[in-house]
Amino acid sequence: MTYCVAVKLKAGMVFLSDSRTNAGLDQISTFRKMIVYEQPGERFMVLLSAGNLSISQSIRELLQTEQLHDPGLAEPITIWNARSLFDAARVLGATVRRVYERDGEALRRSGIEFNASLIFGGQIRGEPMRLFQVYSPGNFIEATDETPFFQIGESKYGKPVLDRVLTPDTPLDDATKCLLISMDSTLKSNLSVGLPLDLAVYEAGQLRSDRVVCIDEHNRYFQSLRTAWGQKLREAFDQLDAPNWQPGGALTTCSPQHATLRKITAPGDRLL
Amino acid sequence: MTYCVAVKLKAGMVFLSDSRTNAGLDQISTFRKMIVYEQPGERFMVLLSAGNLSISQSIRELLQTEQLHDPGLAEPITIWNARSLFDAARVLGATVRRVYERDGEALRRSGIEFNASLIFGGQIRGEPMRLFQVYSPGNFIEATDETPFFQIGESKYGKPVLDRVLTPDTPLDDATKCLLISMDSTLKSNLSVGLPLDLAVYEAGQLRSDRVVCIDEHNRYFQSLRTAWGQKLREAFDQLDAPNWQPGGALTTCSPQHATLRKITAPGDRLL
Repeated sequence: MTYCVAVKLKAGMVFLSDSRTNAGLDQISTFRKMIVYEQPGERFMVLLSAGNLSISQSIRELLQTEQLHDPGLAEPITIWNARSLFDAARVLGATVRRVYERDGEALRRSGIEFNASLIFGGQIRGEPMRLFQVYSPGNFIEATDETPFFQIGESKYGKPVLDRVLTPDTPLDDATKCLLISMDSTLKSNLSVGLPLDLAVYEAGQLRSDRVVCIDEHNRYFQSLRTAWGQKLREAFDQLDAPNWQPGGALTTCSPQHATLRKITAPGDRLL
Repeated sequence: MTYCVAVKLKAGMVFLSDSRTNAGLDQISTFRKMIVYEQPGERFMVLLSAGNLSISQSIRELLQTEQLHDPGLAEPITIWNARSLFDAARVLGATVRRVYERDGEALRRSGIEFNASLIFGGQIRGEPMRLFQVYSPGNFIEATDETPFFQIGESKYGKPVLDRVLTPDTPLDDATKCLLISMDSTLKSNLSVGLPLDLAVYEAGQLRSDRVVCIDEHNRYFQSLRTAWGQKLREAFDQLDAPNWQPGGALTTCSPQHATLRKITAPGDRLL
């Protein structure tokens, strides 16, 4: 499986991906799922991919040369000359459809769904930052202030901490910590998500980034973050009030319509 | 959907269930998913159910009268006379199969999978506590010290906190807090899991419990737990070190084989 997550903040964007790929449980390999496209001062874009590996590798290869012909424009649009990230996402969507045209029918004959799931975001000069999630049919949605992050692949284990921490005002460092913790929870619970990770942090308006790193089991920051988070979570947990079972205590308050005791004490009783 | 979770500790057992049932997104109702079976001093058992509501309601109705005929025994086994919780789980498994025989084929004709998922645990006099997960075919597995808890329904959002906190030595109060927090994370992330909750806490050897309550939106303990956990989680998060991006800093340590910069800077470049 895969876990990728990206967030768009006022301060910038953070992208994070794992690198485990599996065909069943007995065939596990490492394939990196993030690619950064950068023309310093001109455009900075990041692509994260989940789903069938043959599809996502083809998409990444063909994206480099895909051209979108718009009737009103003299030049075809590519990801390298697009004036807006919306147009670049259209090029990506067209690339997904190109791979579908080539492989979709043959995959279906083998009972394999055409399964691709992409996150694509960044900034092009003259435009604000934008973040898109692109689906298998090549259609896409854009992140907003209400929903500033996207996840693809195994998204559930790591979602609670994102929900609790991320808002558009979250600083870049906090968002970076938050995504790494979200990844840690996912790594702990799903064996088909694994190290190394790719992390890219982009500061708004820079149109370049030096903060692109690979994080493997030797990364001291990720090691210390995992340990510290486990400890602090446990401390936070220990500080919570114990349940108060006294009659009339806080735990026993309930509306009358829900107060039915759901207890059966003899074979003949019935309670639904 | 549904979220139910139960844990077996040295000190006792905790059972927790939500009560939301939905047929699609536009038909949502409240059906409680926990039933307690109690003969004080003799047996204490709890059943949690997920899956198709017509199946789980039928299972609960028929479980009251289901009889298992064992060649070596004069009397048929029921959940009310079973000498072990293993035998009681066999009665439950037989009940699941009885409902399957009645409805399975007709459901299949309508394209509906026979989908039932149950947690069943407690204690019978003369036996240690036991906890089982029962599947749609009526087969079942038992919790052990290595895996002391079971979840059914929407299990992923609430699993990380269980993994971090629960061991067989966890005190009952801590386990109760932990399951309520696990439920809170699930309620936040999945609309098809909802209040009120049913909570049952059983102390080892008691063969009865007064700690069976319904928790709705008016429950002061659950309200304060949710608020406090959100705050303390945030404080714990704020105490974590910020990423150190200095060259040679903790975030940039990586094995050479993973150090390839995954950045493309021109249309002709290729990187897979």
